[in-house]
Amino acid sequence: MEDTIYRPITQLTDLLRTREISPVELIEATFAEIDRHEPRLNAFIFLFREQSLELAKQAEAEIRSGHNRGLLHGIPIALKDIINVSGAPTTCGSKRLSDNYATSDATVVAKLKQAGAIIIGKTNLHEFAFGVTTENPHFGTTANPWDVARVPGGSSGGSAAAVISGFCAGALGTDTGGSIRIPAALCGNVGLKPTYGRVSVHGVVELAQSLDCVGPMCRYVQDVAIMMNTLSGHDARDVHSENQPVDDYTERLGESINGWKIGIPKQHFFDDLHPEVESAVDEAIKTLSGLGVEIVELNLPSVPEAHNATLTILMAEAGYFHRQRVVDYRDSYGADVRELLEAGKALSAADYIKAVRAREITRREFSQAFEQVDLIVLPTVPILAPLRSGGSESNRIRPRLTQNTRIFNLLGLPAISVPCGFTQAGLPVGLQIVGKWWSEKTLLQAAYTYEKATPWHTRNVKLNHGVQAEGMTLQE
Amino acid sequence: MEDTIYRPITQLTDLLRTREISPVELIEATFAEIDRHEPRLNAFIFLFREQSLELAKQAEAEIRSGHNRGLLHGIPIALKDIINVSGAPTTCGSKRLSDNYATSDATVVAKLKQAGAIIIGKTNLHEFAFGVTTENPHFGTTANPWDVARVPGGSSGGSAAAVISGFCAGALGTDTGGSIRIPAALCGNVGLKPTYGRVSVHGVVELAQSLDCVGPMCRYVQDVAIMMNTLSGHDARDVHSENQPVDDYTERLGESINGWKIGIPKQHFFDDLHPEVESAVDEAIKTLSGLGVEIVELNLPSVPEAHNATLTILMAEAGYFHRQRVVDYRDSYGADVRELLEAGKALSAADYIKAVRAREITRREFSQAFEQVDLIVLPTVPILAPLRSGGSESNRIRPRLTQNTRIFNLLGLPAISVPCGFTQAGLPVGLQIVGKWWSEKTLLQAAYTYEKATPWHTRNVKLNHGVQAEGMTLQE
Repeated sequence: MEDTIYRPITQLTDLLRTREISPVELIEATFAEIDRHEPRLNAFIFLFREQSLELAKQAEAEIRSGHNRGLLHGIPIALKDIINVSGAPTTCGSKRLSDNYATSDATVVAKLKQAGAIIIGKTNLHEFAFGVTTENPHFGTTANPWDVARVPGGSSGGSAAAVISGFCAGALGTDTGGSIRIPAALCGNVGLKPTYGRVSVHGVVELAQSLDCVGPMCRYVQDVAIMMNTLSGHDARDVHSENQPVDDYTERLGESINGWKIGIPKQHFFDDLHPEVESAVDEAIKTLSGLGVEIVELNLPSVPEAHNATLTILMAEAGYFHRQRVVDYRDSYGADVRELLEAGKALSAADYIKAVRAREITRREFSQAFEQVDLIVLPTVPILAPLRSGGSESNRIRPRLTQNTRIFNLLGLPAISVPCGFTQAGLPVGLQIVGKWWSEKTLLQAAYTYEKATPWHTRNVKLNHGVQAEGMTLQE
Repeated sequence: MEDTIYRPITQLTDLLRTREISPVELIEATFAEIDRHEPRLNAFIFLFREQSLELAKQAEAEIRSGHNRGLLHGIPIALKDIINVSGAPTTCGSKRLSDNYATSDATVVAKLKQAGAIIIGKTNLHEFAFGVTTENPHFGTTANPWDVARVPGGSSGGSAAAVISGFCAGALGTDTGGSIRIPAALCGNVGLKPTYGRVSVHGVVELAQSLDCVGPMCRYVQDVAIMMNTLSGHDARDVHSENQPVDDYTERLGESINGWKIGIPKQHFFDDLHPEVESAVDEAIKTLSGLGVEIVELNLPSVPEAHNATLTILMAEAGYFHRQRVVDYRDSYGADVRELLEAGKALSAADYIKAVRAREITRREFSQAFEQVDLIVLPTVPILAPLRSGGSESNRIRPRLTQNTRIFNLLGLPAISVPCGFTQAGLPVGLQIVGKWWSEKTLLQAAYTYEKATPWHTRNVKLNHGVQAEGMTLQE
């Protein structure tokens, strides 16, 4: 069972349906693995141990009676603790919200429950999701499972650490400037930030409303597609949810991407890369070429201005959301987050309007770029997972870690991070693939084809638990 | 010829094509009429007398040689002096910009010229279009042609006065909070604010970028449709221009609107109406019922918040655009405009974000309302044309005059004002018809049907020139 929990969702579902394993066995193995490694990793804020066992028994009975809820039935899933689960607190990584009990499920949680997924716990995050290291002053730092001296990235660092460590088959993160894709890249997962408005954020505590997205983080591209099938769709309770047709995201996985055009934005996104990131991404682009893809260099002159605009919008909107709390409970915030919120509150309407205009110009520029290419490919993060600093370096490193991700929040474009290599020291590198608005199906097709052509998703973090970077096992 | 200039564009074009009149005669008659009444009305900042005569000769030669440019060929058109005409100053109603010579035509001007229209001059406006009375401290107040003691509305007051006085067959205005529809209503014209993004604003000096629209003002609905055929379409030089299909807006004029559903938002838009506005609009709704339209009462609870949000966004964006000039040239602004710009500059990012959120909620609300109804009908302006105050009352009266118009700028919806009656004292009343996004064709069809069923558009202001309200002549 120890290895079973690392399997892709379709394999787990097969094992459950054929009753080779039972949902109860799967949950027990899951918690056994958590018990072994969680003390060192600190991926969770809460574990729903008893409830999960109860739900596993219920799933077992349902499966036995032929009541099948689909591919997520009986599958362990974790949630970033900024997403409401009825009856549980939503701390947002703040001690002050320890008794902030939710009275109803977020739309995404209701959908997962309906699909039979078992919510095993709520994961640690950068306080209020406003930072990318998951060094949390209230709940401790989550360790990077590949090197516990390093951060996992953030803000969905707990979700990323939990997924790669086999604590769950998938997790939900939120992404306002890269908070799904950065930890996915730094922990070796697949993480998808959907198109803005594709997945409901109703019942998810906001960070910056015009940028916030919820999305899945898994070990395999197909698993992300499976989760998207459950998560996507219009929700009238979310004012930004769009009534766009929802597809079966697994449908085209495995179909050829031969002849597709992929844009490489060499300027702005490939500057000042860590050498091992650079070589891994170069290799990935060669792999894509080998798959029949045409590589097109893109010129996107408005990017630097848009990079700044994203920070302004993020800070202004977060400052707006916290405008009263940061006065009333100033000392309850970590120093890094407080500094950002107070700076955000001080911004003028003119600052914000300037940023919105930059956004519009860049949106046009990318819209035109997508007339030439099907996808855009770039490194997810320009550097490797930074060493832990106890939070003192968090704000300094934030613009650098979000350098290649935050602009896609500004634009609302869907973007996925997939593993594209490991450094000599055994740290994962992420490749970011970005699609047109509402093109998740295309994005997932390309990510899946790339995944199948490379060995990176099969490297098992287990051998790293406790030992530094060596072993590598091809499982599947 | 004195009466000829009041004719609808199709009739003028027929007369020109059949050579019953020549473009030169039409331009001469136009300037003769301007010479008679302009001294009292002050509708223009510049007249292009010589150039117009030259262009009329050119049109005459073209028509003679069988080179026909369409329905606007040889037709006199005026432009609000905030729209660039190559070689002429764009004052925006500010003396400081008296030598602000444009080096190229605005997209709408290039299109009108291409269509053979003759730009006869540039009309007076509220300074920088930031006000709705057209009491201009630099270029004087434009008089309301129906009662020169009253303002024509604004900010496109010069265009409205010129059109109703027969100085041109149509004019361009701009509309950021009602600046086309308000003067159209108070002067008895038809004025259309198109869907945001439908008509290019490239080469038009901005007031508040997320609200600004350019549109036509004419005496007849069909003329507005004819102008829209020339003005509409995507323009890559305007970042907000949308690539939406453009229709022939004249195509369905005259087709029945029987069975259509029209929403009446009794709350918020029918409160505190001048009694003669109220009775004229009630009568108009009865007329529409008589045309087979089903009347549906609408409930739009988010409107009061959205009303405020529009003012915030307008002030913040105008404050942003003028942020440096209002410091460097503080004394060059009229007191009313300076006050608004300085208040706009003082707004915080939080103020603006709050307004943007209200906008999103209201957009959803109207989107849902348009699932029930084809159009929304309401008074354009809740009161009659106010008496002139020399500008001292301009800011006080502004929220009241824009009460029923500005929300449609916030939402980007197309809205037209058509005459729906006259008071005992002979002041016009306007009916506002609002459509779904991109539904100008539907809107114009309804407006045309209403116009044909009522006598208001046929009342000729000429008899009012110099005399107070009495005569009425049915021409056509």
